[in-house]
Amino acid sequence: MQNKFCKKPLYEVTRTLALVAMGAVKAELVIRNARLVNVCTAEIQEGIDVAIAEGRIALVGDASHCIGENTKVIDAAGQYIAPGFMDAHIHVESAMISVGEYARAVVPRGTTGIFMDPHEICNVCGPEGVKLMIEDARRSPLKAMSNAPSCVPAVAGFEDTGSFIGPDEIREMMTWDGIVGLGEMMSFPNVLSGNEQIHGELAETLKADQVITGHYSVPDTGAGLNAYIASGVRCCHESTRAEDVLEKMRHGMYALMRYGSAWHDMPVIIRAILDNKIDDRFACLISDDTHPDTLIQEGHLDHIVRCAIREGLDPIKAIQYVTINPATCFRMDHEMGSIAPGKCADIVFFDDLNDIRITRTIIDGDVVAENGRMVTEIGKAAFPDAVCHTMHVGETITADSFKIAAPQGAGGTVKARVIEIIPNRVGSFERIAELPVVDGCVEADANQDIMKMCVFERHHATGTKGAGFVKGFGFKKGAMAQTVAHDAHNLLVAGTNDADMALAANTLIACGGGMCAVADGQVLALVPLPIAGLMSDRPVEDVAAMIEKLSLAWQEMGCTINSPYMTMALIPLACLPELRLTNRGLVDCRTFTFTELFVE
Amino acid sequence: MQNKFCKKPLYEVTRTLALVAMGAVKAELVIRNARLVNVCTAEIQEGIDVAIAEGRIALVGDASHCIGENTKVIDAAGQYIAPGFMDAHIHVESAMISVGEYARAVVPRGTTGIFMDPHEICNVCGPEGVKLMIEDARRSPLKAMSNAPSCVPAVAGFEDTGSFIGPDEIREMMTWDGIVGLGEMMSFPNVLSGNEQIHGELAETLKADQVITGHYSVPDTGAGLNAYIASGVRCCHESTRAEDVLEKMRHGMYALMRYGSAWHDMPVIIRAILDNKIDDRFACLISDDTHPDTLIQEGHLDHIVRCAIREGLDPIKAIQYVTINPATCFRMDHEMGSIAPGKCADIVFFDDLNDIRITRTIIDGDVVAENGRMVTEIGKAAFPDAVCHTMHVGETITADSFKIAAPQGAGGTVKARVIEIIPNRVGSFERIAELPVVDGCVEADANQDIMKMCVFERHHATGTKGAGFVKGFGFKKGAMAQTVAHDAHNLLVAGTNDADMALAANTLIACGGGMCAVADGQVLALVPLPIAGLMSDRPVEDVAAMIEKLSLAWQEMGCTINSPYMTMALIPLACLPELRLTNRGLVDCRTFTFTELFVE
Repeated sequence: MQNKFCKKPLYEVTRTLALVAMGAVKAELVIRNARLVNVCTAEIQEGIDVAIAEGRIALVGDASHCIGENTKVIDAAGQYIAPGFMDAHIHVESAMISVGEYARAVVPRGTTGIFMDPHEICNVCGPEGVKLMIEDARRSPLKAMSNAPSCVPAVAGFEDTGSFIGPDEIREMMTWDGIVGLGEMMSFPNVLSGNEQIHGELAETLKADQVITGHYSVPDTGAGLNAYIASGVRCCHESTRAEDVLEKMRHGMYALMRYGSAWHDMPVIIRAILDNKIDDRFACLISDDTHPDTLIQEGHLDHIVRCAIREGLDPIKAIQYVTINPATCFRMDHEMGSIAPGKCADIVFFDDLNDIRITRTIIDGDVVAENGRMVTEIGKAAFPDAVCHTMHVGETITADSFKIAAPQGAGGTVKARVIEIIPNRVGSFERIAELPVVDGCVEADANQDIMKMCVFERHHATGTKGAGFVKGFGFKKGAMAQTVAHDAHNLLVAGTNDADMALAANTLIACGGGMCAVADGQVLALVPLPIAGLMSDRPVEDVAAMIEKLSLAWQEMGCTINSPYMTMALIPLACLPELRLTNRGLVDCRTFTFTELFVE
Repeated sequence: MQNKFCKKPLYEVTRTLALVAMGAVKAELVIRNARLVNVCTAEIQEGIDVAIAEGRIALVGDASHCIGENTKVIDAAGQYIAPGFMDAHIHVESAMISVGEYARAVVPRGTTGIFMDPHEICNVCGPEGVKLMIEDARRSPLKAMSNAPSCVPAVAGFEDTGSFIGPDEIREMMTWDGIVGLGEMMSFPNVLSGNEQIHGELAETLKADQVITGHYSVPDTGAGLNAYIASGVRCCHESTRAEDVLEKMRHGMYALMRYGSAWHDMPVIIRAILDNKIDDRFACLISDDTHPDTLIQEGHLDHIVRCAIREGLDPIKAIQYVTINPATCFRMDHEMGSIAPGKCADIVFFDDLNDIRITRTIIDGDVVAENGRMVTEIGKAAFPDAVCHTMHVGETITADSFKIAAPQGAGGTVKARVIEIIPNRVGSFERIAELPVVDGCVEADANQDIMKMCVFERHHATGTKGAGFVKGFGFKKGAMAQTVAHDAHNLLVAGTNDADMALAANTLIACGGGMCAVADGQVLALVPLPIAGLMSDRPVEDVAAMIEKLSLAWQEMGCTINSPYMTMALIPLACLPELRLTNRGLVDCRTFTFTELFVE
């Protein structure tokens, strides 16, 4: 695949690189006397120079003859250098910041490339949202290579999203410069059953000679996994058992081992490699979803590499897993992923191989970060209006909007189906609860830890909404609302009383989406996420601080579970068990049918 | 790169493969209970089934549910299966047989794919010759992936070839279905010096997103090797020292370790891997040039793999070097090179991992060879007239054509520059010899082991010819002629007397080129090579027998060195030291200048 992500295409600069290597033209930058982490041969080589010109590496070895009077020289004595780190599967939206801001957070940590799957924004804004992410990335030096989201909506027929992706949209996106593959194919049951539309998306990707990325999250490593891989899927980040990783690699699939903010699969699944003497060329380390506070406090791939080394992985292998292996996965290893002649000069520096802390990041031959901070400017963001005004709710929300009429002939209480959440897990249970009826309407009941909940369609102002009850968040008072509500990202509101729910909803409508907490008629905390209702336009530190404030507000309302807004965000995701609420109603996700709120 | 070499593109068959893996549609072929050489993880897995449909692998594991009443089942109990072998660098012309016939020789040996560089025929017939090779391959199941020859002529300005290749021709060839890369870039001095035309060829290849193959044959692993690799060259088969291999792999270049009929580099250079604990993903085994008798008696890649194992290489690694590694080198690993779902069903069978003898070859899901023989038909060859009539000599050759006039005022003898060959080496020496003058003409002198030699331009009937003397072949009588004369492949004639030389030359002109031996006015042996004067249209066994007869004739004339026709074939190759003869005259290859035949 032609690389559109380097300063210049190789075909424009081969002469210059040859002449620089020969010393006939002097290098722009020379790194001297480094300890090279050679990911090609998995060796440490001492005393290595690297000569750079036109954003690419001209020579690796002794570069004395490449230094002229205008050559910048970096003395790397005692320091390791490695190729820049690449994340083979990441949703930037999960960090709730723009791509440019994400770059500012991760580039100083050594990340020089990401393969992002912007399927959250695509659910809201469609392909235009994907294009925005690609454009936004261009104001930073980070190589943000994008996959075209494959599954919008996540579960067709059960919710309303802002957009729809099918084979036609995939064919179109495959022609874009910033697209390098198909986003995670979550609809694996449709792959296995031979669904025409889903296979149409796969076909459009393969015709464009691009890479299909996967999401195969079930424990079957037999027929199903084979069917999935045979359909052309090249990688998968959904392994939760060591045997998943082993079987994927045995079947020629890149196993992307995940260590995100919420999902810590890597320590378990890396046993596949640590406990078996196998060729690990198909192994990668990825983050998938990272919260702002993790980026600030722990880091990105540097953090994951350190964790993998702590688990017992050889440091050179760990570095291969975030450099040459992901590059090869995306068939871009001729352009990036190693410190070798002709490759993009994406290079990181660090002092300790067993505790890798990045001290300098070079992208395309430019020093872009040093000592944890960017040293080049990241341009100003420009987000088009359409992406910043995505709150299209089809009714004026008042307290009355949240009333749930009791069934005809109901007495003082009714039996209702309630979604019970499981703290720190993605699943939920269906419970039957007896709820009070007041003035013909069914009410929340804080004594049973049951809140009222509504999902308002917010993309096309259809005026549709789903209503139900949720159990387990511990709210004694108040309400919350958020537009981060996977995957359709409609307006999700839950609370103990209708007035606070209305205030929460209207607060988000007014600010273009985000997350907020309300109690006693006051807004306790607000995280405005004006970009598609998913991302802030502010710095990562500000967003982290706002989220911290939101967490405190949730606690004040009585919720003590960890990152509750994340658990909340999954309640409308109709591909997770058992009971979910979308804007179309209550979904039994065991049978994939709508179900009634009230029980006979 | 989109693979045009499988039965069907993956995008047409993903649905079927998924359904076969799931058992909803039954497989066409199932291999049961094999010992799988898993090149992805470098393991042997026992009791493995492989289900196949549409020429591709649908499932690897337990395929019980994939078997229907129309499924062909192969019981592989006790047998190993591995991916079909691929040769990452091969000149088919060196075997002096057509590509279809070459396939018949190598497919039963387990070769399912070759990356051929048809630069011999390209020197004679230009891109049309390359096209012919690609077309010819289509009558066999062998996947003959072609590189576009890069260096025609080999040394510009010193000889006349039938064709010329520059950036325009490369741009054109890159659009052909059968082309996957640029042929070996022998003109490495021009790469290093930044020559515009040579870098133009590299640029056209890179723009087409194809692979540049290399030929870097000097021992410098510093500036020169870096300059060469920085120019985009991805692989090289010209290593002669272990350190060459090591440095190439360290620089991210695929090291293609050669073990051809004449050049046995592998046992020496494989020490790079055997003596160093390194990641060997950049290692391949290749043949480069193989003679017909080697193909018949020893085999092809199977032979090279056996030899590598004898040198101490782990058998699984040896198999990786001819499967997944070359596939990855050409960025076709998503299509071939492993036994994994979705990949082309190119599979070989054998019984002993330490002495690999192929018993069955499957290509695209069809059993094509068993027990050393093809079991499918190879279609009839059809070679267009232009390719079969390439003898365009610009004069009627008689004994007088070979007269070499003595310099004015010469006495009974003259001093002349003579090419002295070195048996079993590619080099030559310049010698000064005193030669007899008879009737104003300088004569050969069998007593000094010096023959007369002429090179007639044979492509455009320009009537140009070069004349000189050669020492070291041991001829007591007779003459030889051949059109296999690298790289221009003009008509090369050498002999002890003008009459036999004329007969030899005219014999080849009459039969369309080839090799012949003549003595005392009789043709002792003739190897007609009507396809471009380089290849026979007959079976490999016949060609081997004819060459054997030719060897006997050379011996009868007095020549005792090994494969003398190979040494002879290199005499016009002006990129080898010290003295060479082309149709334009005598070339001093140390200074790259024409030189005088007679010395003051």
